[in-house]
Amino acid sequence: MSPTPTTVDVEAAQVRIHTGIRRTPVMELHGDELGVPARVLLKLELLQHTGSFKARGALNSVLSADPLPKTFAAVSGGNHGAAVAWAAARVDAQADVFVPAIATPEKVDRIRAYGGSVHVVDGSMAEMFAAGTAWAEERGVPLIHPYQQETTICGQGTLGLELAEQAPEADLVLVGCGGGGLYSGLRIALEGRARVQPVEPELCANLHAALAAGEPVPVEVGGVAADSLGPSVIGRTAFELARTDGIDVPLVAEEDILAARRWLWRRCRVLAEPGASVALAALMSGAVTVHPGDTVAVVISGGNNPAVP
Amino acid sequence: MSPTPTTVDVEAAQVRIHTGIRRTPVMELHGDELGVPARVLLKLELLQHTGSFKARGALNSVLSADPLPKTFAAVSGGNHGAAVAWAAARVDAQADVFVPAIATPEKVDRIRAYGGSVHVVDGSMAEMFAAGTAWAEERGVPLIHPYQQETTICGQGTLGLELAEQAPEADLVLVGCGGGGLYSGLRIALEGRARVQPVEPELCANLHAALAAGEPVPVEVGGVAADSLGPSVIGRTAFELARTDGIDVPLVAEEDILAARRWLWRRCRVLAEPGASVALAALMSGAVTVHPGDTVAVVISGGNNPAVP
Repeated sequence: MSPTPTTVDVEAAQVRIHTGIRRTPVMELHGDELGVPARVLLKLELLQHTGSFKARGALNSVLSADPLPKTFAAVSGGNHGAAVAWAAARVDAQADVFVPAIATPEKVDRIRAYGGSVHVVDGSMAEMFAAGTAWAEERGVPLIHPYQQETTICGQGTLGLELAEQAPEADLVLVGCGGGGLYSGLRIALEGRARVQPVEPELCANLHAALAAGEPVPVEVGGVAADSLGPSVIGRTAFELARTDGIDVPLVAEEDILAARRWLWRRCRVLAEPGASVALAALMSGAVTVHPGDTVAVVISGGNNPAVP
Repeated sequence: MSPTPTTVDVEAAQVRIHTGIRRTPVMELHGDELGVPARVLLKLELLQHTGSFKARGALNSVLSADPLPKTFAAVSGGNHGAAVAWAAARVDAQADVFVPAIATPEKVDRIRAYGGSVHVVDGSMAEMFAAGTAWAEERGVPLIHPYQQETTICGQGTLGLELAEQAPEADLVLVGCGGGGLYSGLRIALEGRARVQPVEPELCANLHAALAAGEPVPVEVGGVAADSLGPSVIGRTAFELARTDGIDVPLVAEEDILAARRWLWRRCRVLAEPGASVALAALMSGAVTVHPGDTVAVVISGGNNPAVP
């Protein structure tokens, strides 16, 4: 396994992609709105190109390719695929994206809207990964991994550098964890500056399970956030970081995810997808405890689900 | 007519309401995204409490009331009514809100969700105004006017002071104009700092008609933005400011409003209501001309329409 990237690698990614991605805004909520004692900031990353943070890692991966290929491949629950299609189009390259049958129609449409070719794979996320990987290897096409690849992780980490500029006083960052690419990137980018707390749905708890088992293990995944947080095995980098830090991973119930999503829509006119509401759900449900004087940044990571709650 | 308020009055409003309203974020778009040569900033005011800028004027009006009454009345296309209900609840007062039959169910629900009592008036906006005014006068209840009242205008103007802090380099501010409260507030707040350009739908062109006639005149209103920009007569303050400045009011076609609204959703995951998409539509359609080197702030003023385009 290659060594874990460092803050320097994330800074290099930021130099590479900063003209191509949006600097997404941060909005402060009022202390009494959520019924928690801390100051709460929302990092509105659903406003990013392609509707999620995945644009960061995808663009960093595409711009790091040397030589530049004519085609990139991606395996994805949907958001990473749209991001790779978008990033590839920026350098006039093609994108072939493998998605599972559970990918929402909205996400599949997004991939096509950015010019990507979609391959829907029946079966589990693992079978989708295997099919995409085999397809890319046969053709010698570089495959951009959605979370366990240094360029992806460092690209996602640019969200952390941006947040540190926008809200240097944030001492805790809450983030939903699927494959662990965004968590890893934030953890690396904010080393020594803020504590990064990954949170998982009860029904997509691959990091929680890995920490209990002492190594990444496959878990059953399902529920409302599976299309964005549903890899069955946590990425190696995320696992190693979490184990080294000795953290626990709070789990969030389905109804708490949906309640947080409703709150975001009704009180903020922010239409987040369920997976992007998990971090806020952890705060609102009390799964994560905060204290008076804390400043907590909550990453609202994507908005590619158009159903108004 | 009372004299037009000044920047000092808007600053006083900001002191009065700043702990109660959200500081809504500004997001920069990339130059090539809209196909216009200028730098474009979106002021995301739909993230405000109650889903529109109306919270500012309503809270300023409520907190300016002396003595504090037990009940406030409001006449409204919907957003102002929700804002008055929200603001009244903050001081434990009641709100009676008169809305026209064209008010969307979403807006009526919002008023009730904040504890307001809704009175739906069949007939025109003008009939709704008359009914609400008569009801309030009979009972001695103070009526908060949606645009032609100093406390309302100065509250809306706080958006301009905030924008001047967030983006002092903005030299042009585009804003949709209905009754003219937000336009007036911005124009007063940004005096000497930025040019404020009101924009109207072709089908809600009361300011355009007033400038042509030399005085406020009633116009037929309709179309997709009528529930937010549909007063039949422009407010006196807005008219006087526009006439003094000698400005023209660009008009935007229905299909351009809907196209801007779709673009905001598809490319930014911002779900604005049609009336809040008019300013961007003016920019995208070329109804407003900008030049290289300009920094243009576009106010996205509300999001109380849940239909995903």
